[in-house]
Amino acid sequence: MNSTQVEPATTLAGLRAAKPERVTIVLLSGEMDKAMAAFIIATGAAAMGMQVTMFFTFWGLNVIRKPGATSAARDVLRKMFGWLNKGGAARLPISRFNFGGLGAAMMTKVMRDNRMPGVPELIDTAQDLGVTLIACTTTLGLLGLSKDTLIDGVDQLAGVSTYLAEAKDGSVNLFI
Amino acid sequence: MNSTQVEPATTLAGLRAAKPERVTIVLLSGEMDKAMAAFIIATGAAAMGMQVTMFFTFWGLNVIRKPGATSAARDVLRKMFGWLNKGGAARLPISRFNFGGLGAAMMTKVMRDNRMPGVPELIDTAQDLGVTLIACTTTLGLLGLSKDTLIDGVDQLAGVSTYLAEAKDGSVNLFI
Amino acid sequence: MNSTQVEPATTLAGLRAAKPERVTIVLLSGEMDKAMAAFIIATGAAAMGMQVTMFFTFWGLNVIRKPGATSAARDVLRKMFGWLNKGGAARLPISRFNFGGLGAAMMTKVMRDNRMPGVPELIDTAQDLGVTLIACTTTLGLLGLSKDTLIDGVDQLAGVSTYLAEAKDGSVNLFI
Repeated sequence: MNSTQVEPATTLAGLRAAKPERVTIVLLSGEMDKAMAAFIIATGAAAMGMQVTMFFTFWGLNVIRKPGATSAARDVLRKMFGWLNKGGAARLPISRFNFGGLGAAMMTKVMRDNRMPGVPELIDTAQDLGVTLIACTTTLGLLGLSKDTLIDGVDQLAGVSTYLAEAKDGSVNLFI
Repeated sequence: MNSTQVEPATTLAGLRAAKPERVTIVLLSGEMDKAMAAFIIATGAAAMGMQVTMFFTFWGLNVIRKPGATSAARDVLRKMFGWLNKGGAARLPISRFNFGGLGAAMMTKVMRDNRMPGVPELIDTAQDLGVTLIACTTTLGLLGLSKDTLIDGVDQLAGVSTYLAEAKDGSVNLFI
Repeated sequence: MNSTQVEPATTLAGLRAAKPERVTIVLLSGEMDKAMAAFIIATGAAAMGMQVTMFFTFWGLNVIRKPGATSAARDVLRKMFGWLNKGGAARLPISRFNFGGLGAAMMTKVMRDNRMPGVPELIDTAQDLGVTLIACTTTLGLLGLSKDTLIDGVDQLAGVSTYLAEAKDGSVNLFI
């Protein structure tokens, strides 16, 4: 590389332009509104040509759980937890005014009436656009969930070092 | 540009110094404590010469809603939602120990007694310091809110691509 | 610096490699699951050689409060708030299914049975790995807490400008 070639790279934008922008999103929350925000940003970024990785941890794992899939754990505590903490992107609560699911159902209806995609559709779009979906190994174990309780197309089970390796090169790193 | 001029830019700090740092904050939460944190960071950054953009989405839209402004939607669901989800920066709940507003009132009193600015004052300061306020078009529609239900001085209604275009050049991008 | 030396720095990765990556985490939430996520990322990053600073604000201050330490404020409101808002990393609620502490106790038991570190152990590890812990002066005042109600080894009491000065050079900045 000689100094002539170096010149276009001497602005931060120039350096960044050399490779696609990276976006990472950690989704810890299991609420519909937060999951929607996460997937709207993820699909938007992927549509703009950015390389997007989403990490699902704690309640966020519910978003990528197969509907009805329960915990494989044999101990009573985790079984009970898995039962309370039902999975499936179509039945997430909302973070305010949930009223035992009524608020979430209302929001889903308004979205359908206005032809807005819900979380299950946004997940499909994310997968079509090549967003990488990673499930956190540590919290899978904690909630007693195995890989086969997750939706198809989850790319990887990984831990915090995989996340940090991605995030340190990310232009936009969000924790939701 | 010759190589002599290039030299000061050969550190990341040097490259960054060439233009003002950017800060973006997505505010999805409608709680007083989270709104305060968002505006304290936004006004702090603006006071330090950074270029700050705040995006208000979902419950965060309540923070920049005119007190008492209700949903313009004609359908019952969104009307009910707008009614439950009352707006105005002066009457936000807190995220823990709210007790139907008592906790939020207590916190507001302690802040006033200690001459700390509340959310309405922080919004004024943010606007004085040139912080850009953007309301999310998608969730405005979902909650049935129109631009005239928002406080004066909201700079723009925009979607996720506007957010990402700002955030990819941001030094600090937060999701609150 | 001559142009030969400049060359290795002409990629963003190269520029960044010149100094350790910085990670900043604002912890506003006081829930066990979010505190765990914050400390798992913080200790993971520190173990990978990154320079990590954590800022504790609002309910996040509870995580670094000595168990049982109460508010030093003389006014009734803050006393009551400090009493409701009990501190100590070993007794944090969880953000969903807490059931008055039962859910948190269940999660703690599952973690112990599976030999996973809890929040108190993660705090010790963070301190051993040199993670900088900063308590937010503004919210300490608001909650009527003094420095001696915090655990030993909190490095600094500081405000938003200290946070921003760190975060603007951070590769990964999270708000939890």
